[in-house]
Amino acid sequence: MSDPKLSDIYRNYIACLNSQDWPNLGQFVDKNAIHNGHPFGLVGYREMLERDFEQIPDIYFSIQMLVADTSHVASRLAFDCTPKGTFLGLPVNGLKIAFTENVFYEFRNGRIVEVWSVIDKAAIEAQL
Amino acid sequence: MSDPKLSDIYRNYIACLNSQDWPNLGQFVDKNAIHNGHPFGLVGYREMLERDFEQIPDIYFSIQMLVADTSHVASRLAFDCTPKGTFLGLPVNGLKIAFTENVFYEFRNGRIVEVWSVIDKAAIEAQL
Repeated sequence: MSDPKLSDIYRNYIACLNSQDWPNLGQFVDKNAIHNGHPFGLVGYREMLERDFEQIPDIYFSIQMLVADTSHVASRLAFDCTPKGTFLGLPVNGLKIAFTENVFYEFRNGRIVEVWSVIDKAAIEAQL
Repeated sequence: MSDPKLSDIYRNYIACLNSQDWPNLGQFVDKNAIHNGHPFGLVGYREMLERDFEQIPDIYFSIQMLVADTSHVASRLAFDCTPKGTFLGLPVNGLKIAFTENVFYEFRNGRIVEVWSVIDKAAIEAQL
């Protein structure tokens, strides 16, 4: 249902995250990547992901829905995980929670250059 | 960049909302439509939208990003509006706020059959 090439690249990107294969992250993320308005670059993007895994050791990115064209991917990700402390400012403290993230990516030359992500915080609040 | 037909239908749907053209909503929304897991149907979907306009009189749906294939639309909507009272449980009370919504739609026979929407609640909290 989607442009096969960008969908395939995206699925490989998610596999890279789930295997915490940080040395290969640069295959998918541009060195000047922007995330929710923050000009993290590849280095800061990797630090953000490493922090996610540190704070949520059982995090796993599961693609629920994927729409792609030749330059953009939109993905609905589902999570079922256990943040150790606070998450999005909420006192989760080791409770297992389920939530979703609706996220858009702009790609250039096969790499993510910008991300616009929204996590369903209200769904998490309802579980606390 | 996207399948032209579903993108066009979607843009007409958003125009329908912005003009509060409720008699024509059924051109875009299936009579059994589901919204964030709620089986509203067309009647409940229209009630939800009418309630939005009642609680946020200056609401305007602005498409910031749009990715479509043959069955799904993903849209990033931007809002700059003034909820009268509480919004998503937050005491907005007439403050002008800006926020985004990342939302997926499944279409069948040219009509929306299911919606998965996430509003950036954290962005609103940061403005209060």
